[in-house]
Amino acid sequence: MDATNKYQLKIAYDGTNYSGWQVQPNSISIQGLIEKALQTLLKENVRLIGAGRTDAGVHAKGQVAHFCTDIALDCTLMIHALNGMLPSAIRIKEFNPAHPLFHSQYSAISKEYHYHLWLDKVMDPCLCLYRHHFCYKNFSLELLKKGAEHFVGTHDFTTFTNIGGNTKSNVRTLFRLDTVEQEGGVRLEFQGNGFLYKMVRNIVGTLLEVATQKRAITDIPELLLANDRKKAAAAAPAKGLFLMKINYKCISENDRNE
Amino acid sequence: MDATNKYQLKIAYDGTNYSGWQVQPNSISIQGLIEKALQTLLKENVRLIGAGRTDAGVHAKGQVAHFCTDIALDCTLMIHALNGMLPSAIRIKEFNPAHPLFHSQYSAISKEYHYHLWLDKVMDPCLCLYRHHFCYKNFSLELLKKGAEHFVGTHDFTTFTNIGGNTKSNVRTLFRLDTVEQEGGVRLEFQGNGFLYKMVRNIVGTLLEVATQKRAITDIPELLLANDRKKAAAAAPAKGLFLMKINYKCISENDRNE
Repeated sequence: MDATNKYQLKIAYDGTNYSGWQVQPNSISIQGLIEKALQTLLKENVRLIGAGRTDAGVHAKGQVAHFCTDIALDCTLMIHALNGMLPSAIRIKEFNPAHPLFHSQYSAISKEYHYHLWLDKVMDPCLCLYRHHFCYKNFSLELLKKGAEHFVGTHDFTTFTNIGGNTKSNVRTLFRLDTVEQEGGVRLEFQGNGFLYKMVRNIVGTLLEVATQKRAITDIPELLLANDRKKAAAAAPAKGLFLMKINYKCISENDRNE
Repeated sequence: MDATNKYQLKIAYDGTNYSGWQVQPNSISIQGLIEKALQTLLKENVRLIGAGRTDAGVHAKGQVAHFCTDIALDCTLMIHALNGMLPSAIRIKEFNPAHPLFHSQYSAISKEYHYHLWLDKVMDPCLCLYRHHFCYKNFSLELLKKGAEHFVGTHDFTTFTNIGGNTKSNVRTLFRLDTVEQEGGVRLEFQGNGFLYKMVRNIVGTLLEVATQKRAITDIPELLLANDRKKAAAAAPAKGLFLMKINYKCISENDRNE
């Protein structure tokens, strides 16, 4: 029988010291720590389902997760209790009742990731866990921007995903990939209908080769058609990546009949 | 006899894990670590003189220091060598020859400090070492701004300094104290001709009492006249404070005759 109450959480975390979002044997995961805190509070087993399975070292400002329980909860109390129990690197930003048909993964219509590059010669010591320091004399911001444009649209992203994902199709639509200048460098803003395992970091890795003229911009369409992970560059480091936002469709009562 | 070469450094640091700028017995200071690295490279004793003696936990984006040596140094080489030896929490941003009359403290005409307040309910986990989390329902940004205006100008700041400084006079001029809104809260931007020991943090502590109506704005002029540290509020925490910039006068050859 289904549990009667569903709740959704918005979560921010500094992923530096964790094995990633997902529970894995012999390691400390963000999902695992929040599940443990929920189980302590609710005195029952809780399965927390997150929208994006971020890797070790990847951060989040807007991860979303849901869980079901038979207990009716006071949301304000829960947010305080959870933040009191969790390490300061993990913060529950929102805790709300969810529609019975809401699912953090399947109800998502798009996700947004930011990848932060520090381009100046000397790293800001307060940002070294949150930026990829990439300082090359022949770096061209124009090439980075032009290269990024080639990824926008609907493509088979097999060349840009690693083994480890569990999806049937590798076709995804990237709605935008904007290059925004900020203190010390730029951030690459990705918005798409879904992201394959390591897709953002693999795209960034190849864009950095394009920006430093190790690879021609015209290679990108060929790489996308090749469906061969070995042809693209290595993934950019985890620490530059933030899961920013999950966008959801409105759930109406008609959805029950679908 | 004077050493023949003088160099000035611009330094950024994350002060979280250090006892502060200044060398102290049985503790690890930023000055001490840079002096040690310089001594290893130059194979001679080096005394590094900093512009601002930041406390434990206080950060810097623009600390300035100078030292003298008989050795003529390659500045580009030195910046790379020092950053290679120092922990990532301490970065040498600039390394340049200094005018023989330059002194990091005495040549300064003004200093800039920023104090960062996080006012939102939930702290950003990536900023928790660099913001003072201050979340009260009755917090008034308007009262904070109005209170800040009362500190601008030339005052005896005895009420807002702790024992530990070694200055003859406690009169200083605060040129500006601006409240600038930013993600999650505000920063207080201080610019003055000099700052007494713990002066910024003590002013912030009192302003937070004003902003939450624990103290009237009209108390501030009285506090400034009282010359009594015990009458003002406790200091705000170190982690919100950044030494941003030291401004220097131009040194001309005429200065030698002063």
